Amino acid sequence: MSEPLITPDDFHRLIAEEAPYAAWLGLKAERIGHGTALLRLPFRAEHLRPGGVINGPAIMAVADYCMYALALSIDPRGHGAVTTSMTLNFLRKTTGRDLLAEGKVLRAGRTLAFMETFVYADGETEPVAQVTGNYAFPRAK
Amino acid sequence: MSEPLITPDDFHRLIAEEAPYAAWLGLKAERIGHGTALLRLPFRAEHLRPGGVINGPAIMAVADYCMYALALSIDPRGHGAVTTSMTLNFLRKTTGRDLLAEGKVLRAGRTLAFMETFVYADGETEPVAQVTGNYAFPRAK
Amino acid sequence: MSEPLITPDDFHRLIAEEAPYAAWLGLKAERIGHGTALLRLPFRAEHLRPGGVINGPAIMAVADYCMYALALSIDPRGHGAVTTSMTLNFLRKTTGRDLLAEGKVLRAGRTLAFMETFVYADGETEPVAQVTGNYAFPRAK
Amino acid sequence: MSEPLITPDDFHRLIAEEAPYAAWLGLKAERIGHGTALLRLPFRAEHLRPGGVINGPAIMAVADYCMYALALSIDPRGHGAVTTSMTLNFLRKTTGRDLLAEGKVLRAGRTLAFMETFVYADGETEPVAQVTGNYAFPRAK
Repeated sequence: MSEPLITPDDFHRLIAEEAPYAAWLGLKAERIGHGTALLRLPFRAEHLRPGGVINGPAIMAVADYCMYALALSIDPRGHGAVTTSMTLNFLRKTTGRDLLAEGKVLRAGRTLAFMETFVYADGETEPVAQVTGNYAFPRAK
Repeated sequence: MSEPLITPDDFHRLIAEEAPYAAWLGLKAERIGHGTALLRLPFRAEHLRPGGVINGPAIMAVADYCMYALALSIDPRGHGAVTTSMTLNFLRKTTGRDLLAEGKVLRAGRTLAFMETFVYADGETEPVAQVTGNYAFPRAK
Repeated sequence: MSEPLITPDDFHRLIAEEAPYAAWLGLKAERIGHGTALLRLPFRAEHLRPGGVINGPAIMAVADYCMYALALSIDPRGHGAVTTSMTLNFLRKTTGRDLLAEGKVLRAGRTLAFMETFVYADGETEPVAQVTGNYAFPRAK
Repeated sequence: MSEPLITPDDFHRLIAEEAPYAAWLGLKAERIGHGTALLRLPFRAEHLRPGGVINGPAIMAVADYCMYALALSIDPRGHGAVTTSMTLNFLRKTTGRDLLAEGKVLRAGRTLAFMETFVYADGETEPVAQVTGNYAFPRAK
């Protein structure tokens, strides 16, 4: 089993320097393995939508950054990886809780990686959303 | 041709009162028709990701709220409509510009509506992203 | 744990009578539980595409009928369930082998069910495709 | 405006020789432009599913081969292009009619092309399905 190419501390440093939105969200990598990651999005009232439940963009953000951490964990070109497509399936409403995104790489090719992430509300067992994404690595120069 | 059920002013009032994230983003409805909408997301540096381009969550947010405006425009139950699934295809990178989301309803059923939104960088002609979403209306009580 | 509402024999009878395409494909339900199913699509040369690999429609068909079996297994309205959206991620090429679709229900609501299916080539451990689908149940009369 | 790299006759010859499933379906390219295509799937009773409507795999097949024609129309590497992801949104039921898939390329990159196809029942104005796909071109040797 391979070692991840980045640690949670590396990830926090990267988003502090280059991803102000992730920093504003307070995203925290709880665990990064080689092709696996667990990210936490702290609850804040700004994430509520009409009806008082956590909105789609918050769920998307924690899933997207989780998959970015996955790209960084497996490939030295991860820093420049971009999402080419993403599908979100919203399964349950939640509110008032942190979100946890648990992701893994299902396929890592030379050009594209495919990942799946389940988003949970902290303390609940059934997922809030299931998210898949395709990421493209930049070509070697 | 039917009239839209809400105006841009109604939409701005709704997000000011119940959608603090959309308010924080400064989302503005430029035009709402019956089943059509054009929303603007003003550029801000917080939307940049590593590499200096506008990030996925910003693109997702403007598309999601555009489709929420579409749901409100066609159905009196729109306020409680929820996204059941969304697919985003990211087509081009952009930076330093407002985003415009131009959406329309492709199918409105009793329970589900299906919508498509193209996201553009203001002043560019090729879309940044193509987004589709399925929205479920709450059952009448 | 609940019992499935149909058995593999029920499923074979249904497709023999009402789903001639599934019958032509020779689809076989190897196992049906409550919200879980394993279907087999026998290999045939008709499924090859340019390059000599199994084509997308064959992969889609076994996944779609697997998710139809899932709908039948959990809900008495399953017979009339329809796919509202489906996303397929193609992960690896394969050829010359039966396909196995292993699916489960991730969320069963009053109106919609959400399912995930992995498609494998028989004898291989890494999936050929990951497929998700949303199915709508007809309203009770 | 560029010329398409293949004609309908080229496409018919290719599927006759290398795509037996498309040949079995009787797929016919009615029109191929540079990045646009219109394909016809003749109706046959095998495409019906329980409830007597045309099934998902038939809709997927005509959309997938339409997007394959699109790949062939714009890139000399199109023959080896593979679908990496596809999302289908099923909008209306239909039966007893040919299906027409009208597709276009929305983005053509060095590695990936993104396409959108609407599937219609012949003689109807509202689409049966909206389908998007990402296709990867093989690397030049």
